Amino acid sequence: MRLYSMPSSGNSYKLRLLLAFLGREVEMVDVEAGSAALASAKAEGRLPFGKAPVLELPDGRLLPESNAILCWLGEGTRFVPADPLEQAEMLGWMFWEQNSHEGVIAVRAALRCYPHRRAEATPDRMAALLEAGHGLLAIMERRLAGRDWLVGAGPSLADICLYAYTHSAGSRGGFEMERFPHVRDWLDRVAALPGYKGLHD
Amino acid sequence: MRLYSMPSSGNSYKLRLLLAFLGREVEMVDVEAGSAALASAKAEGRLPFGKAPVLELPDGRLLPESNAILCWLGEGTRFVPADPLEQAEMLGWMFWEQNSHEGVIAVRAALRCYPHRRAEATPDRMAALLEAGHGLLAIMERRLAGRDWLVGAGPSLADICLYAYTHSAGSRGGFEMERFPHVRDWLDRVAALPGYKGLHD
Ligand SMILES: N[C@@H](CCC(=O)N[C@@H](CS)C(=O)NCC(=O)O)C(=O)O
Ligand SMILES: N[C@@H](CCC(=O)N[C@@H](CS)C(=O)NCC(=O)O)C(=O)O
Repeated sequence: MRLYSMPSSGNSYKLRLLLAFLGREVEMVDVEAGSAALASAKAEGRLPFGKAPVLELPDGRLLPESNAILCWLGEGTRFVPADPLEQAEMLGWMFWEQNSHEGVIAVRAALRCYPHRRAEATPDRMAALLEAGHGLLAIMERRLAGRDWLVGAGPSLADICLYAYTHSAGSRGGFEMERFPHVRDWLDRVAALPGYKGLHD
Repeated sequence: MRLYSMPSSGNSYKLRLLLAFLGREVEMVDVEAGSAALASAKAEGRLPFGKAPVLELPDGRLLPESNAILCWLGEGTRFVPADPLEQAEMLGWMFWEQNSHEGVIAVRAALRCYPHRRAEATPDRMAALLEAGHGLLAIMERRLAGRDWLVGAGPSLADICLYAYTHSAGSRGGFEMERFPHVRDWLDRVAALPGYKGLHD
């Protein structure tokens, strides 16, 4: 099994983090943004949607989409709750991450951190993203008040998924994390799980 | 069971379509955009992420996110493939729909069709969305060349999910559907399934 993974990307980090928690290794193919390796993975048809991460199975089949790969690798592990409704709730947070959270929290970080995207980072856009992001973090804050994990009694794929871009929302995204103490405690809980790896570890 | 459903919205339509295929009925609470019903569903805390659709279970628990509700209602039906890898592929298309497809195909339709959003519909933005949308439809076109359904041998939740905004991509979104004959044939196949209901049926 081979993972096409972008070292700097939260979407790819989700999978590196799950694998670390599971103590599993797979062959890693680094496809950094702007690299020749990314261009050739695309040219060879290894990225069905044109993006990383993608998991290549031993028989050559290709599975794109970080959250779908989380589900595939997480199946049958302690990171998927046994209760079917909790499974659906877990997926709900993961769809929310892709539809609402990523396009604000990760995008604001990208506009601040990548020189080639500076032109898009107009004051109006950055202000709108800041306000939207605080609204999203407030949804997580309410959820995590009085509970340790997003879904069920233990850490699940939903926590791993949302950790990826939330853990750097302050440093990279410029969001005011001191307003969200339950989110910060939850970030610390994820980082304290055995096997934990940082984005660049 | 009660579904908070926005009549004009593709995300809510996904669920009405699955229920129609399954011959199942649930109590519908219409929460149209801009309506008092939507405002009060929000005020009463019925929409955990502030958006429709949401499924309310008999015990009062609330499940948001259209694609998570599809998974919950579809569990154990013919719309979820038995093979675990096909299940992961199905989820992959559904995450792609939320992360890539909806923000382009549905958004361009909304900018064209809703008077209160006309101000956002600048020529540059509409041109960029047109080009991006044709790129996304080309991904579906390639996938559907030589196969009837997005995943596996029969219709799955992935087809229902992507049908919702693709079926009106021409009429509402202004995309050139004649360039995507396999997508058009697939739309016809979905619409020919027993129990089919249109967006406004
Ligand atoms: N929904 C996808 C998004 C993946 C994505 O956006 N990947 C970006 C990096 S974060 C990428 O590969 N970009 C390369 C490119 O667009 O050329 C997922 O969750 O896997
Ligand atoms: N990711 C969500 C998106 C839902 C969504 O965007 N709903 C819109 C209508 S299409 C909504 O309820 N808007 C009401 C509002 O924002 O006030 C899903 O798939 O359920």
